[in-house]
Amino acid sequence: MLCIGLDPEPELMPVDIMEFNRAIIAATHDLVCAYKPNLAFYEALGPKGLAVLEKTIEYMPDDIPVIGDAKRGDIGNTAKAYAKALFSAFGFDAATVNPYLGFDSIEPFLEYQDKGIFILCRTSNPGAQDFQNLYCTGELTLYEKVARKAKEWNVYGNIGLVVGATYPEELKKVRSICPEMCLLIPGIGAQGGDLASAVNYGVDARGGKAVIAVSRQVLYTSRKKDFAEAARDMAEKIRNQINSHLSSRLERE
Amino acid sequence: MLCIGLDPEPELMPVDIMEFNRAIIAATHDLVCAYKPNLAFYEALGPKGLAVLEKTIEYMPDDIPVIGDAKRGDIGNTAKAYAKALFSAFGFDAATVNPYLGFDSIEPFLEYQDKGIFILCRTSNPGAQDFQNLYCTGELTLYEKVARKAKEWNVYGNIGLVVGATYPEELKKVRSICPEMCLLIPGIGAQGGDLASAVNYGVDARGGKAVIAVSRQVLYTSRKKDFAEAARDMAEKIRNQINSHLSSRLERE
Repeated sequence: MLCIGLDPEPELMPVDIMEFNRAIIAATHDLVCAYKPNLAFYEALGPKGLAVLEKTIEYMPDDIPVIGDAKRGDIGNTAKAYAKALFSAFGFDAATVNPYLGFDSIEPFLEYQDKGIFILCRTSNPGAQDFQNLYCTGELTLYEKVARKAKEWNVYGNIGLVVGATYPEELKKVRSICPEMCLLIPGIGAQGGDLASAVNYGVDARGGKAVIAVSRQVLYTSRKKDFAEAARDMAEKIRNQINSHLSSRLERE
Repeated sequence: MLCIGLDPEPELMPVDIMEFNRAIIAATHDLVCAYKPNLAFYEALGPKGLAVLEKTIEYMPDDIPVIGDAKRGDIGNTAKAYAKALFSAFGFDAATVNPYLGFDSIEPFLEYQDKGIFILCRTSNPGAQDFQNLYCTGELTLYEKVARKAKEWNVYGNIGLVVGATYPEELKKVRSICPEMCLLIPGIGAQGGDLASAVNYGVDARGGKAVIAVSRQVLYTSRKKDFAEAARDMAEKIRNQINSHLSSRLERE
């Protein structure tokens, strides 16, 4: 269930970004269920950064899905262009989208029925509370409303939700609203989310449907020449922790 | 107050995109207060599209601000990368951002104190109602909460709000919550928003602080070789209508 976020911060890398990404993928691909490059880090480097992103996607082993963490959201006509950018131009297997603009901002993504669409629900950051935790009509918070709408919109079965590990109670609530939906769970590691809660509350009743995303904690464990080896060690450690939490949970239930 | 959205749809253009953008800018720059390229349309064309966007920004007359319509929103660390991408790498003068992730997703943008940040408030599309119009704690809708928060966050005076012309009542409410904030108002033209309401409800009490954005209605008036001339005629017509609605309003008040 481990997903590595490929978020390049050149000042933390001992080699150039393409070499870094290649080495990380080569060292960890047998430990992960997916990779998740966040487009912001590539865009910040200008056209050169986007070229690296393209090459990184090309370099990926065919059997590992790549999630484009883009958090896009725009009106119907424009959302169609974003879906094309992410799924056709870049060739991502899945993407994250922002629900603020409602159904017509998400629909063009859903039409790519063989792709996965992760809708932001309860994000992992402190600011998430500003709006996502507001109580809306019917005594539900905004993020719970988003989870319910996502369930309603999921006619092709390709919708998932983004729920941060930093707020276990919220994760629990979303899992109870959407017992069978795939959850993308960031917030472990640098952001302080607890791995045991992520597994206990985020994984579904059959022990699946969770993608636990870690970026900085794996990528920058060592900032020296042994970075790939160190990343593998850390990824393996987290993968084993996930599996061990999962075994304990399945035994308890 | 007219702003032209530079949203390339190659199948509607008689020439290549760069030539199209250059011709539109050359034909309309004395009629507009800003241009607003939406990144989705460039990203959909791959690296070639983004190169055109860069060249388009370079080609802009220095005295006309360029708004990067990107609607980005991500956690603090990542939002910083997006702000860098939009303001440093692309060099936009302003950008649109999505509020769903709250304050830390917007703060890194605000730190660029000489740039403008338009926060999505009440968008122009039908799906906007799914979440933005939900009533939150305190009998305010989500978009009204966003407007209030934006006001609270506006310590550097560089925040504006995006409010669609398609929902005049909502526009009126936002203007009453934020009487002095700059509003970016899309939704005129192809989306069916009413120009008179946009001016009557969106423009501030002194007759300013509104940027009325039109894209398709201007760009694709003619799909033949006379497209630039036709775009100028349409832009001039809309500019004159804006000014005429504004005069009537100022006379009435």
